[in-house]
Amino acid sequence: MEKDTTEQAAREQELVDQVVASFADAADPRLQFVMQSLAKHLHAFIREVRLTEAEWSTAIGFLTEAGHITDENRQEFILLSDVLGASMQVVAINNEAQGNATEATVFGPFFLDDAPRIELGGDATFGASGEPCHVVGSVKSTDGSAIPGARVEVWEADEDGMYDVQYNDGRRAARAHLFTDDEGNYNFWGLVPTPYPIPHDGPVGRMLQATGRSPVRASHLHFMVTAAGYRTLVTHIFVLGDDQLEIGDSVFGVKESLIKVFTHHAPDVPTPGGRVVTGDWGDVRFDIVLAPGSNEGMRAAGASPAR
Amino acid sequence: MEKDTTEQAAREQELVDQVVASFADAADPRLQFVMQSLAKHLHAFIREVRLTEAEWSTAIGFLTEAGHITDENRQEFILLSDVLGASMQVVAINNEAQGNATEATVFGPFFLDDAPRIELGGDATFGASGEPCHVVGSVKSTDGSAIPGARVEVWEADEDGMYDVQYNDGRRAARAHLFTDDEGNYNFWGLVPTPYPIPHDGPVGRMLQATGRSPVRASHLHFMVTAAGYRTLVTHIFVLGDDQLEIGDSVFGVKESLIKVFTHHAPDVPTPGGRVVTGDWGDVRFDIVLAPGSNEGMRAAGASPAR
Repeated sequence: MEKDTTEQAAREQELVDQVVASFADAADPRLQFVMQSLAKHLHAFIREVRLTEAEWSTAIGFLTEAGHITDENRQEFILLSDVLGASMQVVAINNEAQGNATEATVFGPFFLDDAPRIELGGDATFGASGEPCHVVGSVKSTDGSAIPGARVEVWEADEDGMYDVQYNDGRRAARAHLFTDDEGNYNFWGLVPTPYPIPHDGPVGRMLQATGRSPVRASHLHFMVTAAGYRTLVTHIFVLGDDQLEIGDSVFGVKESLIKVFTHHAPDVPTPGGRVVTGDWGDVRFDIVLAPGSNEGMRAAGASPAR
Repeated sequence: MEKDTTEQAAREQELVDQVVASFADAADPRLQFVMQSLAKHLHAFIREVRLTEAEWSTAIGFLTEAGHITDENRQEFILLSDVLGASMQVVAINNEAQGNATEATVFGPFFLDDAPRIELGGDATFGASGEPCHVVGSVKSTDGSAIPGARVEVWEADEDGMYDVQYNDGRRAARAHLFTDDEGNYNFWGLVPTPYPIPHDGPVGRMLQATGRSPVRASHLHFMVTAAGYRTLVTHIFVLGDDQLEIGDSVFGVKESLIKVFTHHAPDVPTPGGRVVTGDWGDVRFDIVLAPGSNEGMRAAGASPAR
């Protein structure tokens, strides 16, 4: 079988060339470029691994099952993109580093456009379970100037690892928006984040299990920060000391610069604003730096389907 | 945006390395190799085209729609694999050239295991519409020796471009199997093949249209030839002079060596075996050479889902 290696390689390459050439008449040059690149990389993969017919059938079956489990509440293809790091790579490509601007990470499927507004120092938990956490910080430009009136959206899972929308009972909790004050500062009450698995009862979950990977996301609190004249920032903060940071975030969302110190206090330690607590409470600081730019981009990704 | 190119490239590569490393604990080394290669090539594609967030969303929507149109009678993911040449590349990789052995091509979705047996010179059309065609040939080994008793399966579309199974009325036509005689020869009556489009009312069809590609397959007659001690051959023959050979077969199945001369005769020319015809009829010769090997392989691909 090995004897005609050169001829075999030539046959395989000829096929790749045919597929690439088939897109030569595409009217849209961008579409042509994307499809030709996709064909080249897809064939490079198949040729590198010498994909067997049985493996090809498995792949077809995997995609079919992913399609059939996907509905308005579950998006297996986004999960697949996430666990292959593709979603995070798209974020990386479309949010290039600009000076000391805060780093972006994955948007996730649980953002809602109509989260309630709260005042500075207000309560974003709306009764969601978990350890109360006072979050404080500033929003500044890369040139160091404060950005007053920046819109800060926050959302997170409760201590059972569930977002409000996952309960399917209409509740709205652990999400809100607020605006920075005249000095560009903000603060609110949220929850100390806890880890939770991505939905893993489908083909993506089976793939993670077969490859010895954890479906669990590192604990995180979502932020989206918008201000006129600045690039919209979509990011999380992570929890220093979270075991999952060592095990690995299942969607590769962690950036070193986004890992923050969450401090825990006993109930008898006075809280900012005098909030009454019945157990331990936490606090964290997250100072945000926005890059100059427009509000487009990540905000548009909010239109991505629910997961 | 261009200023930190080196740093940006390093960030993107670091993410690829993280994804590859996440598969380090896979128990099955083959699965590990395939997933790591998939991750590398997928990220190389995303990085090369600088995939935008809107394009990523379009891709997720495409896969979702492909999943939802797929059922027991329609397989959009196989169509996608076909029109990207991936199916044909898998065939090429798993059927390396061996001497003068007849070349393989795509299996297609319309094979049935229980096609009726016919005698040598018999009629495989079972009333399917089209120009009758007498097909004659031999089955030999790469060493030139005849292979008696080789099983020859044939199937094709009728002149309306439809396979029997596509009528959903239980009919069985234009498919049969027969065995070579003591000298390794075979002959039967089929139909002169005609071109037909793959199903193109779904996302794959829209992609073909957007990129200026034809959904039509070059006219062809399917063969699967099996004999103990030989590699099973799955192939087609194509029709010299078919315009679609110039336009391009939508699934890249054409091999130069598989294009055959179909001769047309007036009704008053005597037919082989004295078959009564009311219009023009054709004939073609297809001499088949099998490579030594086992009956596994392509036969297993018969288990692939219906399209």
